[in-house]
Amino acid sequence: MHKNIPIDHPRYISLTIREKLVNGFKAGIVVPQGLMAHGRGEAFDYLLGENTTPSALYAEKAACCLLLISKHPVISVNGNTAALCSREIVELSKLLGASLEVNLFHQSQRRSHLIAETLIENGATQVFGLYSATRTMINGISSNRRFVDTFGMAKADTVFLALEDGDRCQALRSQGKNVISVDLNPLSRTAQASSITIVDNLIRAVPNMVNLTNQLRAEKVSELIKIVSEFDNETNLKYSTEVIRNGIQKRY
Amino acid sequence: MHKNIPIDHPRYISLTIREKLVNGFKAGIVVPQGLMAHGRGEAFDYLLGENTTPSALYAEKAACCLLLISKHPVISVNGNTAALCSREIVELSKLLGASLEVNLFHQSQRRSHLIAETLIENGATQVFGLYSATRTMINGISSNRRFVDTFGMAKADTVFLALEDGDRCQALRSQGKNVISVDLNPLSRTAQASSITIVDNLIRAVPNMVNLTNQLRAEKVSELIKIVSEFDNETNLKYSTEVIRNGIQKRY
Repeated sequence: MHKNIPIDHPRYISLTIREKLVNGFKAGIVVPQGLMAHGRGEAFDYLLGENTTPSALYAEKAACCLLLISKHPVISVNGNTAALCSREIVELSKLLGASLEVNLFHQSQRRSHLIAETLIENGATQVFGLYSATRTMINGISSNRRFVDTFGMAKADTVFLALEDGDRCQALRSQGKNVISVDLNPLSRTAQASSITIVDNLIRAVPNMVNLTNQLRAEKVSELIKIVSEFDNETNLKYSTEVIRNGIQKRY
Repeated sequence: MHKNIPIDHPRYISLTIREKLVNGFKAGIVVPQGLMAHGRGEAFDYLLGENTTPSALYAEKAACCLLLISKHPVISVNGNTAALCSREIVELSKLLGASLEVNLFHQSQRRSHLIAETLIENGATQVFGLYSATRTMINGISSNRRFVDTFGMAKADTVFLALEDGDRCQALRSQGKNVISVDLNPLSRTAQASSITIVDNLIRAVPNMVNLTNQLRAEKVSELIKIVSEFDNETNLKYSTEVIRNGIQKRY
């Protein structure tokens, strides 16, 4: 229980999740802009009913299948992701045999290293994206996010963007990579440009994906391919927007 | 132009507004939780089309009329309000003859005084809510927001909550006070409990209210009363939720 948040506050759960980010902020891994981005996601989560919808769970399943059949899956981690679910994201990377790479919109060497340390404290054995000597530039992005690790995201066939601002998804797609994103706004550029968009709170999505991967890794590759090929991102996104629209109606 | 935000970024305007809050944060007047609350509002603003809707403008007009006919109007100011529009809020308070009172969810003497200083730098001559000697408690709130100034909000007939978390509106209403709130979420408890809810970005609402007050203060009191009595908050809020619902459909 937080000393400043009364337990009878109707938004208690949401406020305590915010505290995780505030702690991440105090530890130097979250930037002020990341706190605002979280608030934005929180609003969409509120409209979605703060639950994993059936379409989100379906996207999570398809995402796990795609990651399992990929040759070089890479999970891109930013400050908010590290603050919210380092343990779970490391667990997922191990189950999937996926690399972890730090990639920040608001770049800083110190923060990249603090995020990497957090991941390592939570069991990661290798973290990419830390050294300028192994940096490659991707076209079509003017922010610091254009830099990727030569041995990480640059050679990835599938990139899992745990949380993103939206400027990088299209550039990665145009390089022929599969992109899986977690974005609570189904209307965002990231959501629209991704191969698979998970419209869910990262706090729910990653544990779901750990469970799903544990189930799915016993499946035949042909079955995993079938699930991925049947998944239609546009149709699935439409369902999320419907949930929001109906949610607004119901609440009113 | 901000060094970290490329000018071609599609969310450039929104990102530069965020910088105002980040600066307020660095100055000690905004708390991390305030940054997240801003992000939440930003998401609703995005769904509203980032424009003042006709219903928001109508609520702003009714609000100005109500404030003009009130005996003791008080404007409640928090950290985000001070960071976003100190100059405009002071201007509005002068036009209306309204008191300014600092009231914080995440209480701190130092921050209250920093906010008061910002208001004074922007032309305010008196700021309430700073001293414990003149503190009164209102019932029905368990957070620090239960404390109001004996000579400010405690004796107010109308309170303008420039930005709120929602825990205080109902308590002020049950004390028989009129409450005007600015809240981009038309479904929030604050929005639902207010006498007049302005579903608009504060950055647009306050300058609009300055202009409206300049026009309306030449009107007869009977005309102002007529406008207030004709205003129906529930109907007006429904219109805002419709704008959001239709906006989601249109964007998709």
